[in-house]
Amino acid sequence: MTYINFEEENSTGADEYFMREAIKEALKARELDEVPIGAVIVFKNKVIARGHNLSEKLNDVTAHAEMQAFTSASNYIGGKYLQQCTLYVTLEPCVMCAGASFWTQVGRIVYGAKDDKRGYSAYNSSIIHPRTEITSGVLEKDCSALIKDFFQQKRR
Amino acid sequence: MTYINFEEENSTGADEYFMREAIKEALKARELDEVPIGAVIVFKNKVIARGHNLSEKLNDVTAHAEMQAFTSASNYIGGKYLQQCTLYVTLEPCVMCAGASFWTQVGRIVYGAKDDKRGYSAYNSSIIHPRTEITSGVLEKDCSALIKDFFQQKRR
Repeated sequence: MTYINFEEENSTGADEYFMREAIKEALKARELDEVPIGAVIVFKNKVIARGHNLSEKLNDVTAHAEMQAFTSASNYIGGKYLQQCTLYVTLEPCVMCAGASFWTQVGRIVYGAKDDKRGYSAYNSSIIHPRTEITSGVLEKDCSALIKDFFQQKRR
Repeated sequence: MTYINFEEENSTGADEYFMREAIKEALKARELDEVPIGAVIVFKNKVIARGHNLSEKLNDVTAHAEMQAFTSASNYIGGKYLQQCTLYVTLEPCVMCAGASFWTQVGRIVYGAKDDKRGYSAYNSSIIHPRTEITSGVLEKDCSALIKDFFQQKRR
């Protein structure tokens, strides 16, 4: 059993713990035949918001996991700024979600798999707020396999 | 009286007509002490969705005029793609809204004032979908004055 020291939120253990929570969200999306992407937002070592991709279900491109999590976290915090929060998301945010993260001034973004085609960093890394810290590659293989398996099954 | 030939949706007259509808939305935002930005989405010469900035009111950065209009239009159309639609918005879309427009594949975006600081084109023009046509500067002075007056009053 791995001991998670929640005093060190930035530790690899805690990051993997919360990324697993994001993966749980991604699995909920997969069950709905949505591209499996999930997100959680953490404040003071506690998950305060969750979201999974619902673009198809809601016929709404704005229903990405991160967007729903931002709205939900702001509701919890009672304000639109999330400087004290960390977003965990299974896939590198797209331009829309990265643009939203800029407005929230979220303190940190931790993502799993890289999205070479539609990830924000393929467009301009400064889309992210200058005070937002980025950590990538947490449980990358698991996060990446989720997406790859989904599209492989689709092609069959 | 100006005659609007609605058969020519791309005509300056029609663009100004629909931009005035977007300005009406911006004025609704201003009444709520929100940054005055408004949007409408037009399908077959008819306004099918409206939105105005509600970021402060809802404590939610994702509540930009365009985002609400996209969600509403997709709901009207019954699908998430808006290739046959035109978005009219008083200010150049930010990265988040431009990123959302990419996913909708909206046919055309017409905006009023340029946003040199936060407009998507300051980051990367290819954020916009390659099949989305862009028209800028429609009723630019009116759209720009709305924003400038708002911030001038705030500074007083």
